[in-house]
Amino acid sequence: MTGTTQDDYTDRYARRVRGMTTSEIRALFAVASRPEVVSLAGGSPYIAALPLDAVGEMMGRLASELGTTSLQYGIGQGTIELRERICEVMALSGIDASTGASPDDVVVTVGGQQALDLVARLFLDPGDVVLAEGPTYVGALGVFQAAQAQVRHMAMDADGLIPEALEAAIAEAGGRAKFLYTIPTFQNPAGVTLTDERRERILDICERHRLLVIEDDPYGTLSFEGEAPRPLRARRRDGILYLSTFSKTFAPGLRVGWILAPHAVREKLVMASEANILCPSAFAQGAVTQYLSTMPWRQQIKTYREVYRERRDALLDALADLMPAGTTWTRPGGGLFVWATLPEGLDSKAMMPRAIAARVAYVPGTGFYADGTGGGNMRLNFSFPPPSRIREGVRRLAGVMEQELAMRAVFGPTTPHRRRGPAAADAPGPDLA
Amino acid sequence: MTGTTQDDYTDRYARRVRGMTTSEIRALFAVASRPEVVSLAGGSPYIAALPLDAVGEMMGRLASELGTTSLQYGIGQGTIELRERICEVMALSGIDASTGASPDDVVVTVGGQQALDLVARLFLDPGDVVLAEGPTYVGALGVFQAAQAQVRHMAMDADGLIPEALEAAIAEAGGRAKFLYTIPTFQNPAGVTLTDERRERILDICERHRLLVIEDDPYGTLSFEGEAPRPLRARRRDGILYLSTFSKTFAPGLRVGWILAPHAVREKLVMASEANILCPSAFAQGAVTQYLSTMPWRQQIKTYREVYRERRDALLDALADLMPAGTTWTRPGGGLFVWATLPEGLDSKAMMPRAIAARVAYVPGTGFYADGTGGGNMRLNFSFPPPSRIREGVRRLAGVMEQELAMRAVFGPTTPHRRRGPAAADAPGPDLA
Repeated sequence: MTGTTQDDYTDRYARRVRGMTTSEIRALFAVASRPEVVSLAGGSPYIAALPLDAVGEMMGRLASELGTTSLQYGIGQGTIELRERICEVMALSGIDASTGASPDDVVVTVGGQQALDLVARLFLDPGDVVLAEGPTYVGALGVFQAAQAQVRHMAMDADGLIPEALEAAIAEAGGRAKFLYTIPTFQNPAGVTLTDERRERILDICERHRLLVIEDDPYGTLSFEGEAPRPLRARRRDGILYLSTFSKTFAPGLRVGWILAPHAVREKLVMASEANILCPSAFAQGAVTQYLSTMPWRQQIKTYREVYRERRDALLDALADLMPAGTTWTRPGGGLFVWATLPEGLDSKAMMPRAIAARVAYVPGTGFYADGTGGGNMRLNFSFPPPSRIREGVRRLAGVMEQELAMRAVFGPTTPHRRRGPAAADAPGPDLA
Repeated sequence: MTGTTQDDYTDRYARRVRGMTTSEIRALFAVASRPEVVSLAGGSPYIAALPLDAVGEMMGRLASELGTTSLQYGIGQGTIELRERICEVMALSGIDASTGASPDDVVVTVGGQQALDLVARLFLDPGDVVLAEGPTYVGALGVFQAAQAQVRHMAMDADGLIPEALEAAIAEAGGRAKFLYTIPTFQNPAGVTLTDERRERILDICERHRLLVIEDDPYGTLSFEGEAPRPLRARRRDGILYLSTFSKTFAPGLRVGWILAPHAVREKLVMASEANILCPSAFAQGAVTQYLSTMPWRQQIKTYREVYRERRDALLDALADLMPAGTTWTRPGGGLFVWATLPEGLDSKAMMPRAIAARVAYVPGTGFYADGTGGGNMRLNFSFPPPSRIREGVRRLAGVMEQELAMRAVFGPTTPHRRRGPAAADAPGPDLA
């Protein structure tokens, strides 16, 4: 037989695929999902806090009573019922009719990830530059890399993205910057929030340079201390695509997110989405619509806030009590993540196998940079494990770090992990969103 | 304010977006969904034939008893439970372990559409050539166009794709052909099926030229007269990506499809899918898994076969009784569609507004060609409307055609509709899959 063999496709892949390889990190994360491992690596909401019996009853009726619609094809943009509810959700954050938000300009997506992918399809040619916080969301890096774009990271501090760093990056990109990708509130992975004052400055800079803003806001409602600063989109109506998702406030297993876009862009987003997935799931949309129509979803967000605040406190306390000297970390006012900086000389990626052996997992900082930096950092999640497990995880992690530091004191610094090109090689997989 | 306005993004879109415009056809189809219109345009299964109460009970339990998994993130490839069930479904068509099919090489997708999109991402660079039947699936044309590939159509007859046409197209492409995209069984839109003998010849030609085969098989199990010829993938294990979906045999509203791919390709498909959607819906996957585990799905396929056979017969009878002389059509042995060829001089696209005014809808043939041809054809669906509505629809359609022919007899042939470049401009939208 002259047919092709299973390893014989290399010369036929598209250019964007070359360099797409599985990483050793992925294999490690497969182990990290075992129950004996305390995973501080994930980005999963605590689904057990949902009223599952009531959700089940709702899902059952959605199929039995509304099945001829909910199990059928729908339109590419998403149902008008859900888009109206989404506008109610956005109004909580100040994105309302007074800012030009309308159900007609909402596109329902397969979670926040497809939203990002559609943005990339619409705006990115190979070689284009994307400006993004450093570190930034690993899934966004995967999208930008697949689009063959170049990511330029900009520094943050405790007040979020530094406006001067944005100015400098725009100047350096010399007109090739297609957009700013930013997670202003409870940033993933850094856990910091852009202040009100900086929001205005960032917006002014983007307007002045006519730079499109992609505002990714999955966590904005999950505030632990009062309300978060209003989203960028609540402050300006033009030049911003606003992305969010129900994955953190309801259920990621339904894969329902959305984009609020300027009208001309919205039309093209719908066409791009149809070419990608034909239409979002009518059943998943019906489930979210019913949830938002018949269940106490505002109260549920409060419940999540309380659960996550307690877990954040458990994580911060454990870090303060147990981490070796020289370790620092952010103090998120909401969201799911803490970003830790290791003592000089420790490499979070090189340390991963030993951490897994000690039954604790995290995401090495390298996953959140397109340029291979971040080896001195790690992302720690506090939304999924209960407080006692969080403390136990930090205890194990501190033990591993102490051992590393002891080895280093004896044998000198470990060889720094070589810098890698494509960030997606470090992508930890979807259970770590 | 110096910010951008809503119509001011033209200079910032990616190259692939230029020329992406909404068409007048889309606006017409919005009207076609009104209840007074008999739509022969759709591609929707007859969901009312499902045991919706039992499905609802199953969905309810999936959320209430298994919610902490079914509402959570999952892995990018899809659950092992569903992939095992998918292998059972494929085994019905002869794609089984003896042909190398394994759950490990299955990737769960967001319906058949994402499966096509992932294939395009992996294999198509701008300027690449795709060989496809003419006419072919409108959603595939949308994907290939978005990938900036060129589609070369090859002729079919009542026995499906003509092998000599494939040979000629390969020669003409001169090495630029990336793959053959084919729907061998109950083709959409043509309704024809590739014979056993031609399947072997087509496979031999592709092997000889080392041409990858994308076999799209959404309808293969929906046979009205015995079993359909075995899929291409059941005949060869190498060089074929096999795509299918639960949209036609269970429920399109869940958006669950799959790809069976050679192992090296499968790994890259998973990474591409993660960049696109992170992971397929755990809830939708759970629903399909439960459906295939606990409900009589084989019997349900038989039910669909019987319902659709009766409706196909109703459509064929109505066409024979009512169509003007000079109209011809295919006689599908399964699936959802009949392809009609109009009497000389009629233009299916130009006729659409008058058909909608007469309360009947179809898809003009131009939607199924990348090169603007197909104006003399239309696709007629028989899976969704009941037999009496089908006959009424054909009666209305015949009336419109008779009027057109009378006008033509008086005023001469209408100006042929100008040929259009991008086929996606004619894409009728997702409810017409």
